[in-house]
Amino acid sequence: MAKFLVTGGAGFIGSHFCDVALQKGHQVVAFDDLSTGLEIFLTEAKKNPNFRLAVGDIREYSQISDVANNFKPDWVIHFAANADVRRGLERPRRDLEYNTIGTWNVLDATQKSGCKNFLFSSTGSVYGEPEVFPTPETCPFPIQTSLYGASKAAGEGLISAYSMGFGMNSVVFRFVSIMGPRYTHGHVFDFAKRLRQDSSTLAILGNGKQLKSYLHIEDLMKGIWLTIESKPTGFNVYNIGHDDALTVDQSVNYICEYLKINPKRTYSGGERGWVGDSPRIQLDTSKLKKLGWSAKHSLEKAVKDTIGYLTENSHLLNRID
Amino acid sequence: MAKFLVTGGAGFIGSHFCDVALQKGHQVVAFDDLSTGLEIFLTEAKKNPNFRLAVGDIREYSQISDVANNFKPDWVIHFAANADVRRGLERPRRDLEYNTIGTWNVLDATQKSGCKNFLFSSTGSVYGEPEVFPTPETCPFPIQTSLYGASKAAGEGLISAYSMGFGMNSVVFRFVSIMGPRYTHGHVFDFAKRLRQDSSTLAILGNGKQLKSYLHIEDLMKGIWLTIESKPTGFNVYNIGHDDALTVDQSVNYICEYLKINPKRTYSGGERGWVGDSPRIQLDTSKLKKLGWSAKHSLEKAVKDTIGYLTENSHLLNRID
Repeated sequence: MAKFLVTGGAGFIGSHFCDVALQKGHQVVAFDDLSTGLEIFLTEAKKNPNFRLAVGDIREYSQISDVANNFKPDWVIHFAANADVRRGLERPRRDLEYNTIGTWNVLDATQKSGCKNFLFSSTGSVYGEPEVFPTPETCPFPIQTSLYGASKAAGEGLISAYSMGFGMNSVVFRFVSIMGPRYTHGHVFDFAKRLRQDSSTLAILGNGKQLKSYLHIEDLMKGIWLTIESKPTGFNVYNIGHDDALTVDQSVNYICEYLKINPKRTYSGGERGWVGDSPRIQLDTSKLKKLGWSAKHSLEKAVKDTIGYLTENSHLLNRID
Repeated sequence: MAKFLVTGGAGFIGSHFCDVALQKGHQVVAFDDLSTGLEIFLTEAKKNPNFRLAVGDIREYSQISDVANNFKPDWVIHFAANADVRRGLERPRRDLEYNTIGTWNVLDATQKSGCKNFLFSSTGSVYGEPEVFPTPETCPFPIQTSLYGASKAAGEGLISAYSMGFGMNSVVFRFVSIMGPRYTHGHVFDFAKRLRQDSSTLAILGNGKQLKSYLHIEDLMKGIWLTIESKPTGFNVYNIGHDDALTVDQSVNYICEYLKINPKRTYSGGERGWVGDSPRIQLDTSKLKKLGWSAKHSLEKAVKDTIGYLTENSHLLNRID
């Protein structure tokens, strides 16, 4: 049994991580400011005596360091982040505060608590607009195109410098968009929300042809646990995502199939959904596959599980997002 | 005539930039907290009515934004930084505060003041321990090995995201170690200081064989002005450094030749001077050369001009560093 401190533990991905950790018999503290995370995602976890929720904000050093110093985790799993990729330019300090300064706070508190093992959820957005597809971890030095990508890349750099400087063991995952139950953020959520109000039309940002890779939450969990259980040393970075990709239009097709509707689609136009949007994301996951990982769920299932969950939990669609 | 706001304008590199800008007939405000910058470096500049020194700290947003909003610069040249590469691990928040958050403050204040042109002094340390020498700007996605390199890489990412998001024009220079008059930081300074106290022995960090590239301040200024005067658009990144490199031992040879001494050398050992030190730095500068740049001064001259300046200004050696 090991002790896991999970930031963003009440969020979509974090709460799944807590559930799996508890199933495996580990002790878990979820740290979350509940600004986007939801306590209902922890309903099962809370029944387990090995689980505790600590409400706190990663932007406040003492809040995360107090929890780390008291709990003395074996691993810190850092999911807490500002994930509002699209609106970075409206609130340009937000990504810096959550994803860079917040990551420094969690990382330094981890190191000072004596914990040597750190896992970080980064993003394929750190590649900006790469020239190589699928994009490997070792692609040419990227040019950041979004404040979100820049802030996550900065977090990665802090983690590798800490690993080198303080002898920590760390794993950085560069995620594609993750889908599945408890998904409460992103284009399927936006579409589900708007289609619920009016299923006759659907306004789509960009030209609908942006090609993006996704992954089912269960396949993400398998990849993360594979690396943790391999007892990594030093600094390690892995892409994770499905080999397949979907255009926004194909994704809408699956949503409409599931909902049995046929809205008229309108497009804002342009190859990017918004300034800084990557028109294409597809990651080379050969490195993770060499550890034995593969995706089991198709992207069709990922989209349909997501829209299915949102349909069954339509109260979530009322959340401001 | 254009208006230049120069952060770190009282420092080694910044004060040279101010001098050249004034010689070219431009209007200059130097912004500096005088924590490591020295007003004596601005003795000539202060005689010029086109020059003003604004004392302030880039870590305080309002201090830099007030100056930017009042002066309305055409260019912001951002040199202010924590350059204490070696002691990053002793004060691990320092690089983040100066080089990442400070850079965000300067960048956002620039953008909000209506200024569209930004130049940033980054470092070859962003390459960590690269596998390719000389290292081009497009080398594989680097792994950060020092908090200094990580904090500067984070600054670069912010600048490219702002350039993309707000239509700014920016130039990032990845510097090697710069030498010449007003040099007050780094190994030649440390050696000069210790040899002045005792010229019979010299303790050297590492094995003396770390191979590093350097550049004379005059060659740096030529490169920087070449890019400014080419009216760059979008985001641009350039390596700058001499094609030659010196081992620490060779550098000591030049210092001893100049001082006409022959100290007994002792070595702390290991291929790195300290944890996170890059054992080898040599940058591919083909991209800048295509603009017409080349280095005129040899590294022997760079080292000897530096030790010559420190000998003539030995009061500087009493500064705590």
